[in-house]
Amino acid sequence: MKPKLTLKQIARELDVSVSTVSKALRDSAEISEETRQKIKAFAKLYNYKPNNIALSLKNRKTRTIGIVLPEIVHDFFATVIGGVEQVANKHGYNVIICLSNNSFDREVMNMEMLANGSTDGFILSVAKETQQKEDYHHLEEVINQGMPVVMFDRVVDEIVCDKVIIDDSEGAKKAVQHLIDLNCRKIGIITTVDYVSVGKLRTKGYIEALQKNGMQVDEENILKIEDMERSEEEIIDFIKKRELDGIFAVNEQFGASAVRGLKEKGLEVPKDAVVISFSDGELSKRFIPSLSTISQHGAEMGARAAELLIERLERPVEADERFKTEVIETSLIQRESTLRTKLTSV
Amino acid sequence: MKPKLTLKQIARELDVSVSTVSKALRDSAEISEETRQKIKAFAKLYNYKPNNIALSLKNRKTRTIGIVLPEIVHDFFATVIGGVEQVANKHGYNVIICLSNNSFDREVMNMEMLANGSTDGFILSVAKETQQKEDYHHLEEVINQGMPVVMFDRVVDEIVCDKVIIDDSEGAKKAVQHLIDLNCRKIGIITTVDYVSVGKLRTKGYIEALQKNGMQVDEENILKIEDMERSEEEIIDFIKKRELDGIFAVNEQFGASAVRGLKEKGLEVPKDAVVISFSDGELSKRFIPSLSTISQHGAEMGARAAELLIERLERPVEADERFKTEVIETSLIQRESTLRTKLTSV
Repeated sequence: MKPKLTLKQIARELDVSVSTVSKALRDSAEISEETRQKIKAFAKLYNYKPNNIALSLKNRKTRTIGIVLPEIVHDFFATVIGGVEQVANKHGYNVIICLSNNSFDREVMNMEMLANGSTDGFILSVAKETQQKEDYHHLEEVINQGMPVVMFDRVVDEIVCDKVIIDDSEGAKKAVQHLIDLNCRKIGIITTVDYVSVGKLRTKGYIEALQKNGMQVDEENILKIEDMERSEEEIIDFIKKRELDGIFAVNEQFGASAVRGLKEKGLEVPKDAVVISFSDGELSKRFIPSLSTISQHGAEMGARAAELLIERLERPVEADERFKTEVIETSLIQRESTLRTKLTSV
Repeated sequence: MKPKLTLKQIARELDVSVSTVSKALRDSAEISEETRQKIKAFAKLYNYKPNNIALSLKNRKTRTIGIVLPEIVHDFFATVIGGVEQVANKHGYNVIICLSNNSFDREVMNMEMLANGSTDGFILSVAKETQQKEDYHHLEEVINQGMPVVMFDRVVDEIVCDKVIIDDSEGAKKAVQHLIDLNCRKIGIITTVDYVSVGKLRTKGYIEALQKNGMQVDEENILKIEDMERSEEEIIDFIKKRELDGIFAVNEQFGASAVRGLKEKGLEVPKDAVVISFSDGELSKRFIPSLSTISQHGAEMGARAAELLIERLERPVEADERFKTEVIETSLIQRESTLRTKLTSV
């Protein structure tokens, strides 16, 4: 048998993007008639038939769940996988993981590969680049092929499917309220660029918490990080320039670097300034001081996503088809980085 | 088409282990004649034919590499995945990841699933439980089916295949020598139980470094951790009881907890005591003090494993068949946790 032609190979041969090929093959109006014809002719010549293959496999159960993730360096995604595995294994399903490395093209290719007979359905958190492009045709495609998708954490409003989220903005409010309750009056946030949906929502929660308490929002106290690699320098620099007594970091790496910045400025945590972060991983637990955090309950999120997917896979065709969005409650875990009584003077 | 019967289902139906089913189906003498007959009859009745399926797929290239890992909570495995992905993607291969969660049964099932048409070959680090059981028949099975396997990090001497390792014992020697060069005279090690091959090798390196420098090995200064979850308490307790001026921890989590133990004892790091760990992850970098470490170069290890696998996949059949074991050099990264000049008096 000849090696199967992939979207990527077609794209390379015709010098267009993977996304263009994928869209052209399903006759998207976004692609010019001429390009569509060219791509379809090429695909036909080399016998590329994604939909047909998928259709012929439709009734074959693989009893495998595919997880597609942006990355796994964050402990959060590792704990989500743990939760998925636990439920999946209990129900006799295997789990396969693919990483997009936050690349749109890789996400498209991973889903193409897994949809081609390797899995019954998907659990997915979309890539940063996909959110930036707002191009979700590959998700529509697998759903149209009859494969259920459950999105979690970084979800897409436009896609109709089951979703498991935490209320990021509510979680952020809890974190900031905790700082306010400790008498912080100059609270900064270290967050991500806005096109990352969870970063945006956490920034929203930060702003709302300040406003609710009658405090001014100073744009200068908001640091938006684009590049993880260079984040520590940026954070230390930000903290040295600002006079902050409380910091809310949207992940534990940023939280750890915030503590370093404060120390370099000569401030002790939690005595002179306090730090709270988001997501409850190894770094938060082992750090000195251990980091107070908003726990996203990754394992629970993964478990719930797996349950929703398996329910849908095993549901009779005529059953209720409505999609659910489930919200997992966040909780505040107080550790050393905010462990102090109220400051009387600030 | 009927859902495919899995090893696990057969095992459940007949109330035997997955390993027993797998061995019986390939006529292993380890399984009694009676049990073999029973299992084979059952498998035949339900049309279970793993080898036939694999054979029919043998000439179909999936252009996919399967990675089977014990876990991903350790940054090390995440960086290995990164290295594999980079090389694989460059050569037009996709990557699929499965986790054994250190369970032998899950490792067997994952390999069964992936070998069944989802991948061309494997990159693998074996589960703790597999090392404990010393049962490697599932590895022999895929190799006998003609699927290449590259093992890395936790490798198995008995299995003949390509391997990528670091010299764990040499790396440990470097770490301990670094402490000795800083005038440490009472050096402890925080390691894992002996059946984890890398832990054992690092303990060996620790002992050799002490002996080479004419220092006594005191068993009381060796802490072997079995349970990751409870490790912090155990480490703090160990450090409080011992009078140590240098600690070598075989992973960064243990290193972080060692610093906490020393602080609780009233010792400052690196002034009064120094700490060095193994593996260069986020925790080592962001920790305060940042942790000196022996870098395992996970990305390079992954990249090299992927290269070896792809070379073998794309090699003409008549080509040289000898297997390679490549050793990736470790390197010492000095950070704050050992950043001091020699102590003149200890």
